[in-house]
Amino acid sequence: MVAPIRAVPNAAKRATSLLRTIQYTHPPSCPCHSNPGYHNQPPSIVPRIRQPGVRRYATPNEPQKEYAFEMAASSIRFGPGVTKEVGMDFKNLGSQRVAVVTDRTVEKLDAMKQVIEGLTREGVNFQVYADVRIEPKDSSVKEAINWARPYNPDAFLAVGGGSVMDTAKLMNLYTAYPDADFLDFVNAPLGKGRPVDKPLKPLIAVPTTAGTGSETTGTAIFDLVSKRAKTGVAHRNLKPTLGICDPLNTRTMPPAVMAASGLDVLCHSLESWTAIPYYERTPRPSNPILRPAYQGANPISDVFSFHALRSTVKYLPRAVKNPDDFEAQSEMLLAATLAGVGFGNAGVHLCHGMSYPISGQNPAGYRHNGYEVPQALIPHGVSVAVSAPAVFKFTGASNPERHLQAAEVFGVDISNVKRESAGEVLADALARFLDDLGDQPKGLKDLGFGSEHIDALVEGTIPQARVLMLAPGLSNELQTERDQLHRLFEDALSH
Amino acid sequence: MVAPIRAVPNAAKRATSLLRTIQYTHPPSCPCHSNPGYHNQPPSIVPRIRQPGVRRYATPNEPQKEYAFEMAASSIRFGPGVTKEVGMDFKNLGSQRVAVVTDRTVEKLDAMKQVIEGLTREGVNFQVYADVRIEPKDSSVKEAINWARPYNPDAFLAVGGGSVMDTAKLMNLYTAYPDADFLDFVNAPLGKGRPVDKPLKPLIAVPTTAGTGSETTGTAIFDLVSKRAKTGVAHRNLKPTLGICDPLNTRTMPPAVMAASGLDVLCHSLESWTAIPYYERTPRPSNPILRPAYQGANPISDVFSFHALRSTVKYLPRAVKNPDDFEAQSEMLLAATLAGVGFGNAGVHLCHGMSYPISGQNPAGYRHNGYEVPQALIPHGVSVAVSAPAVFKFTGASNPERHLQAAEVFGVDISNVKRESAGEVLADALARFLDDLGDQPKGLKDLGFGSEHIDALVEGTIPQARVLMLAPGLSNELQTERDQLHRLFEDALSH
Repeated sequence: MVAPIRAVPNAAKRATSLLRTIQYTHPPSCPCHSNPGYHNQPPSIVPRIRQPGVRRYATPNEPQKEYAFEMAASSIRFGPGVTKEVGMDFKNLGSQRVAVVTDRTVEKLDAMKQVIEGLTREGVNFQVYADVRIEPKDSSVKEAINWARPYNPDAFLAVGGGSVMDTAKLMNLYTAYPDADFLDFVNAPLGKGRPVDKPLKPLIAVPTTAGTGSETTGTAIFDLVSKRAKTGVAHRNLKPTLGICDPLNTRTMPPAVMAASGLDVLCHSLESWTAIPYYERTPRPSNPILRPAYQGANPISDVFSFHALRSTVKYLPRAVKNPDDFEAQSEMLLAATLAGVGFGNAGVHLCHGMSYPISGQNPAGYRHNGYEVPQALIPHGVSVAVSAPAVFKFTGASNPERHLQAAEVFGVDISNVKRESAGEVLADALARFLDDLGDQPKGLKDLGFGSEHIDALVEGTIPQARVLMLAPGLSNELQTERDQLHRLFEDALSH
Repeated sequence: MVAPIRAVPNAAKRATSLLRTIQYTHPPSCPCHSNPGYHNQPPSIVPRIRQPGVRRYATPNEPQKEYAFEMAASSIRFGPGVTKEVGMDFKNLGSQRVAVVTDRTVEKLDAMKQVIEGLTREGVNFQVYADVRIEPKDSSVKEAINWARPYNPDAFLAVGGGSVMDTAKLMNLYTAYPDADFLDFVNAPLGKGRPVDKPLKPLIAVPTTAGTGSETTGTAIFDLVSKRAKTGVAHRNLKPTLGICDPLNTRTMPPAVMAASGLDVLCHSLESWTAIPYYERTPRPSNPILRPAYQGANPISDVFSFHALRSTVKYLPRAVKNPDDFEAQSEMLLAATLAGVGFGNAGVHLCHGMSYPISGQNPAGYRHNGYEVPQALIPHGVSVAVSAPAVFKFTGASNPERHLQAAEVFGVDISNVKRESAGEVLADALARFLDDLGDQPKGLKDLGFGSEHIDALVEGTIPQARVLMLAPGLSNELQTERDQLHRLFEDALSH
């Protein structure tokens, strides 16, 4: 604490101050001071600014740019064995009716055993919903909501990967709004984008994969089948009360799953690190409740994203190569969570936007090696990372410093690299990293895509407005954007 | 999100895994993996472990060491002008009776004007309590609680420095427990250390200084006059719902206040960075509600603390030397908040523990230059930083790598520095930094202390168990600890 402020500047100083303050405020001329990468950019490569009148912002007047950012994250508890504390947590919360949400695979794992024992030991009543669908659809989410509404839980516990945690968030949301229509809260333009204007019930999330970071974010993703699009609900009030990160729970991940999940972490960190800065986002929200969670890169998300990037580059190869490397596995769980805080407050962009049609369309019925599933499957992390070299080659010009800093994390000596080559250098480093990891496609061709599929991929990407608006260098004019995406997918055919 | 986990390791692999897991779990042999500083330490200088039977832990059996850490932080909104959003925030929360807490100085500043206008514009009812005492005492806190209890607010808004925010936290706590005795929640051993077992009312904090970080922490500090000790209440449930960090609000800080507040940030970051690691803390809590907020250094607090250290070293001199350097001021506000997340989840140790008797005893009636106050005053930040060179010389041996990394932040070329000299090198760098900042005491002598005051300083430090238990290298045997503190204060007489 500091002592009383009695000495105030004199009138002349205050006037000078005020002038300078105004200069900094409307809009901030240099608001992102800890990010040297945002400075000294020739105007032509400053991340684009959404202009009025374009389809994503239908405001009649010129929208003001954002001037603030907000960082929110779930509390995180981390340690080997912490799962067993969860019964006490619910007892401490005074919960009497806990909805335990999981899927048929995780139901059989030790994490669920620990959870059930903990709840039982503390005398906390609960019911288990184990029918979460992996890669949830609106229909599977609605089924889960229909289960939850009559049970009317006073708390939720999600045990599983991103699909489970996201479904639990939506169960919590729609139980709190029993009369809401499903599309009410779904991201605009596919849904109505209604803000969540009251606190939800406590939700504790116990991740069993090291990838999604969903335990710290207010985002829930699913397939909206009727619109053939991946979308979701994103609001800070959806975020879990507590994420219980227990490295004992991720030991069950086979190497292929570890690799795919880890590539999701890699892209969460790289995309949020390179997303347009928050102060280039428009419009400035008229009410803080309208400030999106995906608000662009900001000085706090930067700290998380860059740290997670370094950890992932260091530990993911070890975690994949040696299933007994518990240190590397633990570090990947921590990196996934930290990346979750980063992208949960900054957002992702092209890799994720382009990944949804990749995994959704899968025209050749590709089934990823190491996944013992009956159906065709391009794992989310694989579909995200496959376009990463093409994406960062494209975004490099928007912020060469940040792309070079990222390349340096991969071990590239950047001392003599020209700014113009920043994107290419990072793309090469990424391609090498994917190659060294093993069992990764060397582009969309290896997943069964050809030039003939690109139009459909582009059309499947266009509706991902929420993430595309954070993509540096992407045009806000529809036909130009379409052309840019076309070239990006073409470039991603092979790296 | 990741795809379904169907492929599980075979039985042999699982058995091997389990063996290794156990090896990592009881206790973790290497749990803090991202902290190379914790490795390769000769056993003699590994941070000490509290043993059973000593006064701080009165458990009859050997206490197990901690195995987990928990990170909790308030949401943070940052931007020039965000103060004006606060009325909408309370309207969004549905608040109808807001207690606005401030002090007589801040009451007249623009921050309060913005707040009152915002609440009025949104039609939110409120009452103002402007009688917070700077450097609160139990008596002033009780007065504030006595004001709040009959008003029974449904939300709190703190506008001011650490004293205001801390008082507001305590008003919130004791209004939620109307029958609680004041000592019930105060840190043991001075109080009863009762855990806060229910959520409190929403509290929004608008800091007007860049120092305390109280807007993100669950800690509230005051003087317990009867015990002649600085103590407080520390629990995660006390942390504000939202910290509104508006760099326009810290422009009113005169340079001397900016310097002292910034030195508090410097020590928050350095102390939490060098505190004993969480897994050396005992006892392992039997219930997660008993896990202290001050839990020792951990991989997440490390990220915040080290980042805040770098920002402070870079921007504090600029902010102090040029009152018109709005960039440096903004960065210091952000650094204060990030350091708050760091130490709020890790803790502080010797500089803070020793500072309380320094500012409390002030035998020569020292009044710090630049503080226009009627009474004697050693500002908190000054009392904390004055012993920093002595403290880090002492703690250097506990973790030379971390001390060297910190020295490097101050610009020291550490490539040829021996591990044994780590503490000394950091101490020298700190002394130079304080000297360059200007108007700082070169040791306790400059504050009017002599050798004859050291016994009293030591006795005033001993009750600070909550922070001393995190001090690396400090003995847990009372007489040895006394001797160590004696030498520390002696060394801090001049640097």
